Amino acid sequence: MKALTFVAPGKKELVEKPKPEIQKPTDAIVRITKTTICGTDLHILAGDVPAVTSGRTLGHEGVGIVEEVGEGVKNFKKGDRVLISCITSCGKCENCKKGLYAHCEDGGWILGHLIDGTQAEYVRIPHADNSLYHIPEGTDEEALVMLSDILPTGFEIGVLNGKVQPGHTVAIIGAGPVGMAALLTAQFYSPAEIIMVDLDDNRLEVSKTFGATHTINSSDGKAVEKIMEYTGGKGVDVAMEAVGIPATFDICQQILKPGGYLANLGVHGKPVEFHIEKLWISNITLTTGLVNTTSTPMLLKTVQSKKLRPEKLITHRFAFKDIMEAYEIFGNAAKNKALKVILSND
Amino acid sequence: MKALTFVAPGKKELVEKPKPEIQKPTDAIVRITKTTICGTDLHILAGDVPAVTSGRTLGHEGVGIVEEVGEGVKNFKKGDRVLISCITSCGKCENCKKGLYAHCEDGGWILGHLIDGTQAEYVRIPHADNSLYHIPEGTDEEALVMLSDILPTGFEIGVLNGKVQPGHTVAIIGAGPVGMAALLTAQFYSPAEIIMVDLDDNRLEVSKTFGATHTINSSDGKAVEKIMEYTGGKGVDVAMEAVGIPATFDICQQILKPGGYLANLGVHGKPVEFHIEKLWISNITLTTGLVNTTSTPMLLKTVQSKKLRPEKLITHRFAFKDIMEAYEIFGNAAKNKALKVILSND
Repeated sequence: MKALTFVAPGKKELVEKPKPEIQKPTDAIVRITKTTICGTDLHILAGDVPAVTSGRTLGHEGVGIVEEVGEGVKNFKKGDRVLISCITSCGKCENCKKGLYAHCEDGGWILGHLIDGTQAEYVRIPHADNSLYHIPEGTDEEALVMLSDILPTGFEIGVLNGKVQPGHTVAIIGAGPVGMAALLTAQFYSPAEIIMVDLDDNRLEVSKTFGATHTINSSDGKAVEKIMEYTGGKGVDVAMEAVGIPATFDICQQILKPGGYLANLGVHGKPVEFHIEKLWISNITLTTGLVNTTSTPMLLKTVQSKKLRPEKLITHRFAFKDIMEAYEIFGNAAKNKALKVILSND
Repeated sequence: MKALTFVAPGKKELVEKPKPEIQKPTDAIVRITKTTICGTDLHILAGDVPAVTSGRTLGHEGVGIVEEVGEGVKNFKKGDRVLISCITSCGKCENCKKGLYAHCEDGGWILGHLIDGTQAEYVRIPHADNSLYHIPEGTDEEALVMLSDILPTGFEIGVLNGKVQPGHTVAIIGAGPVGMAALLTAQFYSPAEIIMVDLDDNRLEVSKTFGATHTINSSDGKAVEKIMEYTGGKGVDVAMEAVGIPATFDICQQILKPGGYLANLGVHGKPVEFHIEKLWISNITLTTGLVNTTSTPMLLKTVQSKKLRPEKLITHRFAFKDIMEAYEIFGNAAKNKALKVILSND
C-alpha cells in the first residue's frame, strides 16, 4: 500500500509498504478513505518530535471502512464506516477511568507518532472499541475528518477548559485550524463576544464568517492595548492561546480579568515567563492539555443536528497520491489561504 | 487609641491616633479584642506593597465587639461579637455576584492596606453586613482569628482551587501558617497522602501532628527527586505553592501527574519560568488567587463541630501593647518556632 513516511528532519516520502496486520485481539485494520495533515505533522518534519523514527507513517486523523477486526473487538465489524480518533485509549487504566484518554497507559497520542498513522491506504488501530466511532448515517464523511483531532481539541482544551459561559468575552489568539475549531465550538455556550487575533488578514476575515464578533491584526505588536481598549479596560473572561510561542502566551496573560481563564491550546517548544508577581492576586486559572476526545460522541451529535459545520474548515482537496503537493500547500498555509486539506483514497 | 502604623519601609511604630468614626451608612466600628500579624504585614514593612502609605494602621485579621453601626447596617448591632474578614465586599457588584469578593469593585483587600486596619483598639469596617460574621456561642474567639484570613486562604486558594479529592496525593510546599492552614483543611476531603515540604525541621515535625503523612526537608535541593521517588515516579495529584518564590514554584511544576493541579498560595514578587514546553501536553491546571472568604460561614461550622481546630496554629500570645515585641518574634518565625501570634486588647 501507499504511505507517507517520515525519513529524517526536513525529509518525507511517499512509499510502498506492507498493509498492516492485526497484532492484538483488540486491534482493527481500517481502510482509510479520507485523511488530512495536521500542524503537528509539520512539527515532526521540523524535527521537533524526536520520538518519531525514520520510516514511520505520519497522520493521526481520518475516516475509513473497517477491513478486519481482532477477536476481542466487539463494537465494530468488517464494512463499518468509522471515524478514527487521534487518541488511542484502552478505556480501562487509571487515567482512562478519569477520562484522561490522552494519558492512557497503553495509548494516548501514538498514531503517526509511536506507531504507523493514517496517511496511508490502511492503518492498524489498537484498542479499536474505544478509539473508533461509528459514522452516523447521512453525515458527510469528509467533514468528520475534522472530528479526529482539531474539533475536540478546540472544544475540550479551549472551550471546556476555558469554562466559556453565556455572556462571556472570549479572545482567541491564533486563527489557524485549532483556533478556528475553538471559535466554532465556543458558540455552543453563547459568549457575548469572541475576539480573534492573528497576523493574517485573510484568516481574520474568514473568522468573521465563522462567528468572530471582532478581529485584531496583531502584527503591530499592540494586541494587548487593543483588547484592553475594546473591553473598556476590563479584559476578557477567557483567553485561548492557539499558536504555541512565548509572544502569544504573553498576550493571553496580560488580557485576563480577575477570575479569568487562560486555556492553552498551542504546542510549545520553549518555556514562557509567567507573570505570577502580577497574577498571584488575580484568581486566574491556566490550563494545558492534549485532547482526550471524550467529547467525540457529543460532537458527532452536533454535526448530525447541523449545529456544528466542520466542513467550513476545509479549504483544499487532493487525491491521496498527491499528498506531497498537499504538504506544500499546507506548509505555507497562510499564504495559500489554507485551513485544512482533505486527502481522498477513494 | 493605640495603633500599630507603617512609617516607611523597615519602620513601624505604636502610636496614639483618633478612634475611627462612621463615614458611610454601611460602616461599622468594631472594638478589637484579638488580632494577629500576617506574613503580608512583613511584606508591607519590607516595602513590597507601595500602595501602603505612611501612617497607615496595619492588620487585616481579628475579632471584636461592635461599638457602633451606620444606619444602613442591618445584620449587626452594638455589642455583637464579630469575626472580621480580611476581605471587604459590597456583595452587590459584578465581581461580588460571581463570588469574587477579593475583587469587589468597592472593597477587596483594603484593611491595613488602603484603609486603616485591625492592629489597633478600634477599626472601621466598610460594607459591614457582608464583611463581618457573628461569632457563634461557645466558640473560642482566639481560635477564630485564624478564620479572618489564613484558614479561608488555605482552604479556598489551596484546597478548593487544587480540587483535593478522596484518595489524592497532595504536596504542600511551605509549612508556614498558610501551608498549615491548607494542610488542616485538605483533610476535609480525605486525601490518601499529604506530603509537607519545608526547610525547617521543627515546622515539619509540627505538620505531622497536624496530619501530614510524610515530610521532606528541601534544604538539600532534592525535593523533586524525593517526591517522585516517594510517589513511585508518578507525581502528585495536587501541588500547593505556599512560599512565593521561583524555587518553590519550580518544585510544584515538576511533580505534577498528568491531569494534576498546581494551586498557588504564595505572594510572589518575581516572575517565574513556566515549563509549558513540557506541560502543554500534561492536562494540568494552575490557579492563583486572593481569598474571597466565601467559605467563612462553612468554616465557622467546622470549628463549631470541632472538625477544624484553628487554635493549633497559635504558638505565641501577647498583650496588644507589646505588639512591637510580637513583630520581633513573628519576623523570625522559624527560629522562634512561631506560626501565628495572638495579640489581646482585653
